[in-house]
Amino acid sequence: MSTLSAATLAAQAAKAAKAVAHLSTEQKNYVLQSMANAIRSATPAILTANSAELEQAKANNTSAAMLDRLTLTPERIESMAQAIEQIIQLPDPVGSKRFIEERPNGIRIEKRRIPLGVICMIYEARPNVTADAGALCFKSGNAVILRCGREAIQTSLAIANAMHQALAEHQLPQEVVTIVPDPDRQLMLDLIQQDQFIDLVIPRGGEGLIRFVTDNSRVPVIQHFKGVCHLYVDQSADLNMALELLLNGKVQRPGVCNALECLLVNQHQAADFLPMVAEAFRAHQVKVHACERSISHFDGAEPIAAADYGQEYLAPEIAIRVVDDLDAAMAHIDQFGSYHTEVICTQDQASADTFINQVDAAVVMHNASSRFSDGGELGLGAEIGISTSKLHAYGPMGLEALTTERFVVSGQGQTR
Amino acid sequence: MSTLSAATLAAQAAKAAKAVAHLSTEQKNYVLQSMANAIRSATPAILTANSAELEQAKANNTSAAMLDRLTLTPERIESMAQAIEQIIQLPDPVGSKRFIEERPNGIRIEKRRIPLGVICMIYEARPNVTADAGALCFKSGNAVILRCGREAIQTSLAIANAMHQALAEHQLPQEVVTIVPDPDRQLMLDLIQQDQFIDLVIPRGGEGLIRFVTDNSRVPVIQHFKGVCHLYVDQSADLNMALELLLNGKVQRPGVCNALECLLVNQHQAADFLPMVAEAFRAHQVKVHACERSISHFDGAEPIAAADYGQEYLAPEIAIRVVDDLDAAMAHIDQFGSYHTEVICTQDQASADTFINQVDAAVVMHNASSRFSDGGELGLGAEIGISTSKLHAYGPMGLEALTTERFVVSGQGQTR
Repeated sequence: MSTLSAATLAAQAAKAAKAVAHLSTEQKNYVLQSMANAIRSATPAILTANSAELEQAKANNTSAAMLDRLTLTPERIESMAQAIEQIIQLPDPVGSKRFIEERPNGIRIEKRRIPLGVICMIYEARPNVTADAGALCFKSGNAVILRCGREAIQTSLAIANAMHQALAEHQLPQEVVTIVPDPDRQLMLDLIQQDQFIDLVIPRGGEGLIRFVTDNSRVPVIQHFKGVCHLYVDQSADLNMALELLLNGKVQRPGVCNALECLLVNQHQAADFLPMVAEAFRAHQVKVHACERSISHFDGAEPIAAADYGQEYLAPEIAIRVVDDLDAAMAHIDQFGSYHTEVICTQDQASADTFINQVDAAVVMHNASSRFSDGGELGLGAEIGISTSKLHAYGPMGLEALTTERFVVSGQGQTR
Repeated sequence: MSTLSAATLAAQAAKAAKAVAHLSTEQKNYVLQSMANAIRSATPAILTANSAELEQAKANNTSAAMLDRLTLTPERIESMAQAIEQIIQLPDPVGSKRFIEERPNGIRIEKRRIPLGVICMIYEARPNVTADAGALCFKSGNAVILRCGREAIQTSLAIANAMHQALAEHQLPQEVVTIVPDPDRQLMLDLIQQDQFIDLVIPRGGEGLIRFVTDNSRVPVIQHFKGVCHLYVDQSADLNMALELLLNGKVQRPGVCNALECLLVNQHQAADFLPMVAEAFRAHQVKVHACERSISHFDGAEPIAAADYGQEYLAPEIAIRVVDDLDAAMAHIDQFGSYHTEVICTQDQASADTFINQVDAAVVMHNASSRFSDGGELGLGAEIGISTSKLHAYGPMGLEALTTERFVVSGQGQTR
């Protein structure tokens, strides 16, 4: 594919987008069911492509974590198909109407939701994202350009082949789901210059990838750099509840962006709460980086270092700081937070309200686990990404975030 | 100001933004009234600064149009103050709550509207934008960095001085409304790299400026390149209505982005409608660029050239094309439209619905003038800009477009 040009890829996707923008919900759901069926039928072909890539990845000394993400099994392929069937059940945001007003001159103003057009997903070696993002973009009436990590391209192409069969059955162009078949970085760079054809870029992966895309894209980018989530245990917290939120946030699945990375404890709770924390973390083998006001409670804890605040450990490891009061907790989050998810545990509604109103984060929780900061848990049905910048979407993004609203004005010949 | 750094300006604005984000609507309205009063009181100082800049601009052979935009009079300053008083009357989007759902596990999810943070406006020599954008950003809880054209900096500083007095009266930092006092292009370039501090850039001006800002910004940009608005006169149009919409769109104020630039006429209406158009355009001295199917109706019309389609004349000048049918009209708009405003004149609801659903534009009108495509006319109360790209906002942007929604989750200790 040496002659492959980003402009051609993008222009073809933009053309294909027009073919899906005006499909009815029913039509889109039929196609999605065909996609799920086709992926199931293609299980042998997908596994063959995947085995070859796994072998290659092992030969390249790929990390165990990446090998796990890359690995498909018949069960994982079935999950992919089921995920598409769940997307069929989601409400279609496209076409929804919102009456604004009838002006004194009689013109009637409403807003109607339309697809964005072409979404470009840039992600690492996760073949399931290919099916998932392809289906979510399709359900919201968009075309998608999928640029996955080089380790998973053949597996992604096998999955996309199945989706293309489904598109062809319904006389839709295969460019509705476009896989970039070449991992060349220059091609990616060219792709994110195509603001004439591409409406949104969603990078998913490490901070370096997201920074590279943001710095070089002409197309608007949804950014999700990292999740450094704090739990603040207030003076009026229920300490048993606080301990449950802490353990759930740190231990249940430490490698995800909505896991807790820092515990802030009100000074009046420190003497009671920190021994409870120390015992639980010993049992769960959580490594502690403790401030000087808390370290005496933790045997073998590391004294806090400058880099520990704001650190995304993604591991059973946490920073702990005792703070004077709510204001000090909010000042800490202001300095070290990542605009992702922040939690307060308190029985005092006034403290909760202050925290909710003043902390700058996409998701603010009161007496609930940071682990709920997820499209599925927040009722979006599915998640295409999480935005930690405020434009367009802030927080977990569902189907609606892949659409926009336009004005529709109806009159009887009115002029100004 | 040789030591002025973009990072310092932006960091100070970001700090100031925190001081306004949590003000109540009442507090913000008090400050806005003080701003209006202070601008009225500062009329002599503003006029002095403006006279000096006008003299300088005349010495530099500035165009008459720009001189007019630059010129302030006591009446224009009074209008500025009144515009701020109108902004007081607008509903405050910040803090509005939207219940999403209570999940089966009992957590309660809502969305609450918050300010974006820091808005950077980049505009040409229009001193009124200083007051207007300053007040709109303030009302929506944001700080603003105003970078106006070099010809109007002293006038803008005089206006901002008055606004700063009002801020000081209410113990608010003057960086809430920051004027970039140096027209240096490198400083602007540095400013739009400050994505750590600035949340949104809104360039208002020529296509070159907007392209420059889009190509070089790390901060998300709201783009409004141009308005190439079409009127399609359908087979079932009321021709008297069509003529009124045409004249209003082309003649009432040709220099604005929601003026009509191209008339598309259904072939079955051409013989009846084009003579009406020819007569009216003769009376209003509108220059016509006509396609080969329409030129016989227009004495002295220019034959259409390739560049005429998609041209933003911003003058009493128009392109005219006869098209076979609705599909041909939509294909024309698809090729030459600018995603701004498109109008269909028809008595046939099915044609109107097809046009509304399929034409890609921020504002689609049925039997109403393109000139209504404006924040005020569409009920937004005021307009900070018009977006012709789909992310975040599409079409005229009011106060709500200067805010975003975050998730707020309340529980009783729920975990996953």
